[in-house]
Amino acid sequence: MPTSLLLPRRPSIKVHSMTVTPDNVPGDPRFFTRHGPFGLEELAQRSGAELRPAADGATATSSFDGIAPLQSATRGQVSFLDNRRYLPLLAGTGAGAVIVAPAFADKVPPHAAALVSRTPYQAWARIAAAFYPPPPVNPGIHPTAVIGAGCEIDPTAAIGAFAVLGDGVRVGAGVDIGTHVSIGPGVQIGARCRIGAHVAISHALLGERVTLLPGARIGQDGFGFAVTPEGFESVPQLGLVVLEDGVEIGANSTVDRGSMRDTVIGAGSRLDNLVQIGHNARLGRCCIVVSQAGISGSTELGDFVTVAAQAGLIGHIKIGTKARIGAQCGVMSDVEAGADVIGSPAMPFREFFRNVAFLRRMAKKTTQDGAGEKANRA
Amino acid sequence: MPTSLLLPRRPSIKVHSMTVTPDNVPGDPRFFTRHGPFGLEELAQRSGAELRPAADGATATSSFDGIAPLQSATRGQVSFLDNRRYLPLLAGTGAGAVIVAPAFADKVPPHAAALVSRTPYQAWARIAAAFYPPPPVNPGIHPTAVIGAGCEIDPTAAIGAFAVLGDGVRVGAGVDIGTHVSIGPGVQIGARCRIGAHVAISHALLGERVTLLPGARIGQDGFGFAVTPEGFESVPQLGLVVLEDGVEIGANSTVDRGSMRDTVIGAGSRLDNLVQIGHNARLGRCCIVVSQAGISGSTELGDFVTVAAQAGLIGHIKIGTKARIGAQCGVMSDVEAGADVIGSPAMPFREFFRNVAFLRRMAKKTTQDGAGEKANRA
Amino acid sequence: MPTSLLLPRRPSIKVHSMTVTPDNVPGDPRFFTRHGPFGLEELAQRSGAELRPAADGATATSSFDGIAPLQSATRGQVSFLDNRRYLPLLAGTGAGAVIVAPAFADKVPPHAAALVSRTPYQAWARIAAAFYPPPPVNPGIHPTAVIGAGCEIDPTAAIGAFAVLGDGVRVGAGVDIGTHVSIGPGVQIGARCRIGAHVAISHALLGERVTLLPGARIGQDGFGFAVTPEGFESVPQLGLVVLEDGVEIGANSTVDRGSMRDTVIGAGSRLDNLVQIGHNARLGRCCIVVSQAGISGSTELGDFVTVAAQAGLIGHIKIGTKARIGAQCGVMSDVEAGADVIGSPAMPFREFFRNVAFLRRMAKKTTQDGAGEKANRA
Repeated sequence: MPTSLLLPRRPSIKVHSMTVTPDNVPGDPRFFTRHGPFGLEELAQRSGAELRPAADGATATSSFDGIAPLQSATRGQVSFLDNRRYLPLLAGTGAGAVIVAPAFADKVPPHAAALVSRTPYQAWARIAAAFYPPPPVNPGIHPTAVIGAGCEIDPTAAIGAFAVLGDGVRVGAGVDIGTHVSIGPGVQIGARCRIGAHVAISHALLGERVTLLPGARIGQDGFGFAVTPEGFESVPQLGLVVLEDGVEIGANSTVDRGSMRDTVIGAGSRLDNLVQIGHNARLGRCCIVVSQAGISGSTELGDFVTVAAQAGLIGHIKIGTKARIGAQCGVMSDVEAGADVIGSPAMPFREFFRNVAFLRRMAKKTTQDGAGEKANRA
Repeated sequence: MPTSLLLPRRPSIKVHSMTVTPDNVPGDPRFFTRHGPFGLEELAQRSGAELRPAADGATATSSFDGIAPLQSATRGQVSFLDNRRYLPLLAGTGAGAVIVAPAFADKVPPHAAALVSRTPYQAWARIAAAFYPPPPVNPGIHPTAVIGAGCEIDPTAAIGAFAVLGDGVRVGAGVDIGTHVSIGPGVQIGARCRIGAHVAISHALLGERVTLLPGARIGQDGFGFAVTPEGFESVPQLGLVVLEDGVEIGANSTVDRGSMRDTVIGAGSRLDNLVQIGHNARLGRCCIVVSQAGISGSTELGDFVTVAAQAGLIGHIKIGTKARIGAQCGVMSDVEAGADVIGSPAMPFREFFRNVAFLRRMAKKTTQDGAGEKANRA
Repeated sequence: MPTSLLLPRRPSIKVHSMTVTPDNVPGDPRFFTRHGPFGLEELAQRSGAELRPAADGATATSSFDGIAPLQSATRGQVSFLDNRRYLPLLAGTGAGAVIVAPAFADKVPPHAAALVSRTPYQAWARIAAAFYPPPPVNPGIHPTAVIGAGCEIDPTAAIGAFAVLGDGVRVGAGVDIGTHVSIGPGVQIGARCRIGAHVAISHALLGERVTLLPGARIGQDGFGFAVTPEGFESVPQLGLVVLEDGVEIGANSTVDRGSMRDTVIGAGSRLDNLVQIGHNARLGRCCIVVSQAGISGSTELGDFVTVAAQAGLIGHIKIGTKARIGAQCGVMSDVEAGADVIGSPAMPFREFFRNVAFLRRMAKKTTQDGAGEKANRA
């Protein structure tokens, strides 16, 4: 175990005239293209925030050319307060404008304009996206790509180097398909989807604006087999995967196709990295599944369900709308709509933490009071 | 948190004239090629089921052209009862034939033939496979594939686009190697293996009929290093990975090669997606490892061991034949043959659920009876 | 469940004239190139061990041509005792030299030299690496690789088949880039990095000697979005990933780039397979993160922190230097430097095992003593 490692820490590492110094400033110009500048009125309009000019009147007509955290922002930059505990930073910020919730609007220093929003994180998302919109799609098919017979590819779509499309694949307008992507025969990909490098898709229908991060695996065989005296016998997996509009799936996540019906991820749902979705599972609209969680075969989630990191759901159960499954939770039976559960096996949040506190107290008491414990047993 | 998301749900999504409507009918003809029709006698023979003609005599000689769930099946289709709770559907099915266990044979409606089997799921697997056999392998090497010196590739094998085979790779009869597969020097792949897209294999020997789903990683360096005052020092990983006959490994799973001996997955074993197998681990025959489970280095499983989803086994332990490790179980020591364990740390099923029930009861009681608890402490 | 699978076990499997027999001998010559032979003096020098000649004097000047486990080693081979429980094997070994800790030096049989080291595993690593050094890098760019405009590639670097480098990528001396690797625009890769097959890297700066195993995903979008009445809205992810010198990342692991600052993996840290690192996370020097563990966004680890397999850390917490997080631990708050925690939620090791023992004892007692339990409730 690493108990005796006491090397001095180098503040930065130079390599072949390259420096890999971590940075606390977003938008490194080597990797991101900044747009703008934008005036305050336009930023207010784009973000849906209410503009309150700076108390000293200086910045009302200024133009802004970027974004920065409160600590490092300067007059030409927009910043953002997202958490009460960073209030001290707000007082000292050099930013020319700050996005805040209504409760904090009067804490913005006099030199700065306030962009006041009841949904400040959304306002921030929009202003950040104004300065840094997603990179444009460069239409065209890379000369190395292998395109099957009978494919329909919109002329505004981009197909990356070494991509392989099977026969009859259909690709919508503005789609961006990365390098080394493998798409099986008959797959449909709706408009403005973004398919990352090394993604494999087969037996699947994708709506519009679906985003798949690198290495996601969509549509492979589910884990279905009969156990027989001679060993295991595979059951043909005859369903598809359907990813509805706006679904996003993280890096190296896996979504198996159905066996007798389709596996479905509902519109707007977001899956993080390394998530597993078993065959025939159905997620409703706008579900969130955080990293390394797993949903077993034939389980159904309502709309707006949240499954936190490393949680696991067994197969053939139903999770009601707006239920929230805690991190590392092990769900073995149905969960009611709106319920919050955690623990393995799953139980209500309140019960879980009550159990934890009880056990801690009792175990400690018993150990400290060894005589009494022995007496009890006598 | 998604508490205010109340969009109406659209029943289907049209994209660029594509529709991505989830479907409850298996075998979408855009993706699957149906074989048949088959007569009842042939279906009985292929499935090993006993044929009991329909009570009304109508279908004894009919031909069947497909399969369907009980709810949607019609006279020309075969269906399947796999679970007692679907008995109500059996009475109302329109299917012309139904596979059932002996106990349910007399519940089959009079218009339908019964295919009676003591292993109905296996019978179903075989009938489904009769209608939908695995797609044939199209022999030949894609012109874009890169083949190293001294490779031996059976003429009946298929090598996909952009596959790369290192020097001296041997590929058996009927093997199907997908797109973008990377195979290191010296690797051997037995007859009728199916290697999915983006699989990487190095330092490995594969038996016959091994199936690797997309993105599986076989044979990379194990996690082995010495901890020294100067940092970590890698230990050369000098074993191989051996995948015996009929092994199946899921999407994005990882099997590290051994350090001083081979990592071995025994014949017929099936690993689900996102499973981790550490270096020097040895699995016996016909083990099942469900999604996101992990087996640490040098641990050994007997035959027919089941490891459920998200379970973790530490290194250097032994799991006896037919032991079953529950979901999310944390196994820190040997498990006897035939034992069922769950919990973290692992304990017998009975003990685990007894503990859960005890803790729930006591914590609830103590909280409700605050005075008594205080009195106890006094 | 696989309860009735009783096939006889075949000791070896022949396939198309290929045999896939598991092997207990390291260094299969079909896959590994052995260097040497080496004299004892040289081995002592390379390993930093103290040489004690064989008691019978026979091997003091012998040359050694390989390594082997104690059980199978012969006079010309070096072996290694790493664990007290293998002491019985030491007495019977045929090895001509054995690496041992000082405490076992006098247990080495008379025909064998002892290589005595206070860090025997490190000594073993060095001797194994003497016989089996990492394969050399073959400089040059494979003709199928696609290289963007303005890339700088050191002439001693190797670029594999079907690799794709975006514009402006910089690749240092002695770097080895595998097949099907995808590297986004502007990425920097320091000297002597080894990038495995199918790795995807974007928005990242790599120091020297960074190793990425196959399928690792570095620099993709983090899981960041605003929850709005209309659904989820992505927040631009404007930070990078910085991998400092000597970092190693396992197969199919995922490291998201930062949103407002860089995600950083400190120098010398080692991540196992299927590990998840969220956006803005920062790991110090020489951290160890074992397979299937996950570290959520903005969490910070000090130096020499160990995170065991399948552990999960929530976001925005701090883990102190040399803390150790146990397997399957769920960490919901800060952990002090040097602390050992386990359980979900995390607690000190001692408390966790005290709780486990207490619960087991009490639940058993209560169940056995049902009458008393009922009386309590009355």
